[in-house]
Amino acid sequence: MKDETSSFAARLKANALAVETLLAELLGPDPCTDEIARPAILFDAMRHGVLNGGKRLRPFLVSESTAVLGGSADAALRIGAALECVHCYSLVHDDLPAMDNDDVRRGKPTVHVAFDEATAILAGDSLLTLAFDIVAAPETPLSDRQKTELVLALARASGHGGMAGGQALDLAAERKTPDEAGIVTLQAMKTGALIRFACEAGAIIADAGIEDRRRMRSFGEKIGLAFQLADDLLDLTADAAVMGKATGKDAARGKGTLVALHGQSWAERELEKLVAQAEELLAPYGARSAVLAETARFVANRRS
Amino acid sequence: MKDETSSFAARLKANALAVETLLAELLGPDPCTDEIARPAILFDAMRHGVLNGGKRLRPFLVSESTAVLGGSADAALRIGAALECVHCYSLVHDDLPAMDNDDVRRGKPTVHVAFDEATAILAGDSLLTLAFDIVAAPETPLSDRQKTELVLALARASGHGGMAGGQALDLAAERKTPDEAGIVTLQAMKTGALIRFACEAGAIIADAGIEDRRRMRSFGEKIGLAFQLADDLLDLTADAAVMGKATGKDAARGKGTLVALHGQSWAERELEKLVAQAEELLAPYGARSAVLAETARFVANRRS
Repeated sequence: MKDETSSFAARLKANALAVETLLAELLGPDPCTDEIARPAILFDAMRHGVLNGGKRLRPFLVSESTAVLGGSADAALRIGAALECVHCYSLVHDDLPAMDNDDVRRGKPTVHVAFDEATAILAGDSLLTLAFDIVAAPETPLSDRQKTELVLALARASGHGGMAGGQALDLAAERKTPDEAGIVTLQAMKTGALIRFACEAGAIIADAGIEDRRRMRSFGEKIGLAFQLADDLLDLTADAAVMGKATGKDAARGKGTLVALHGQSWAERELEKLVAQAEELLAPYGARSAVLAETARFVANRRS
Repeated sequence: MKDETSSFAARLKANALAVETLLAELLGPDPCTDEIARPAILFDAMRHGVLNGGKRLRPFLVSESTAVLGGSADAALRIGAALECVHCYSLVHDDLPAMDNDDVRRGKPTVHVAFDEATAILAGDSLLTLAFDIVAAPETPLSDRQKTELVLALARASGHGGMAGGQALDLAAERKTPDEAGIVTLQAMKTGALIRFACEAGAIIADAGIEDRRRMRSFGEKIGLAFQLADDLLDLTADAAVMGKATGKDAARGKGTLVALHGQSWAERELEKLVAQAEELLAPYGARSAVLAETARFVANRRS
């Protein structure tokens, strides 16, 4: 058990390093084809927002779901980097004074604090745009059909009907606490959509059939729900120093969460159920899916 | 001459109406495949930002450059709508208090005034994301190769090496007036890149060869420069009521423009030169390119 955990941790860390290295390369000083110039301040802000030493859970899910189905690891790394650009842009914008007004993230000043609000807005916009650039770029070793499918799926997961829409619902939830159905929709959009995309992307990258694609998508939904429940539990219990950001903010703002509605022990049972369902979805892949199954447990049990 | 002008105006208006109708459809209340929900406030804000009765010059350029080279008019309309989403997102974000702090656009309150800053940020983010959604969607009648090329070209024109990067340079120009080379780069990025994309997109949609693509791209560069010079002239001379927005702001902020450096009559001569070069680039297409040539003249002579 100890070996399994430490090998999982090593694998997660190695992938995070590969993602960080690729993102640093993509955000280097030299303009690509069709770029006119790379303004230094904007790039410093983009790097500040994205090269933050995160766990890179979403890219890991892309890589591991691709590995289970036998797709290109290089392509998975690039799609993971694109997805991380979307995730990081959303953090940069969510931290803005007009949104969650957070000064610190992962123990560092947020982009608008380290630079200024205008630069943070533009850095977020540019990271979002870069995500689609990376998917479509000639360096991504996928067919045009796969790239088109990934662009569409990423846009749907990120935009008005996914993550950005979820953030809009989250802002509305500060004014009026949503009912249970409203909370479920909000969370499926705000955090679930990108995690679901991460797993479904593996099936697209591996050019898998419809059955595998549905299975990976359902797996992504389960761990998206687990991720959010674990997050809500952490918000209740974690120490701000461990999280590297302010905690207890959801409760302070009166935002509804399922944990607040049903209690901590309900949430812990629910997490066990979700992990079991996620593992069941992976059953047909046998030992090949051991790391992905471990990821589901990691997501449910994470303490930071 | 009068007939030519009025038929041009009618064609521009008909295209703007088609773009507006398509955008209104795309921003309807019902979620598409893979969208979880469409939050009402966010959609109201997106519609406010994009259904603004604009001239839709960029979509017109996509449609007319496509028509010259014999591509699908339906595809051109959809790519034009996608491009307009990018243009409108940039206006929504540029108007924010942290950026240009504008309260009025086209005689209406800007999005952050009509709604709030957070909603304006999210509406802009969602419009940018929607642009890539539209390009990749199955409803766009183009091959996956064409879609991939369009996604990449649009991302490069819009992102850190194009429009967003140009806005970053523009903010820097308020602190330190750039030299002539700096102004040229700033303008090529901030306004030139999307206009160049509009014309190059026609060649991609028509699946034209490399020579036609280069020609359309150069044509786009010429009218991009003309658009900016005309804009700078307007900023000096126009009446705020005609423009529907605050004018004379560039001078008030000490921003450098080529008109400020070289004077009004230099700019007028330069505009004539650019129009002549643009028309020369279209010469091989003969009468088929009459409307596109007229568009170059329209851009150079526009008074609002």
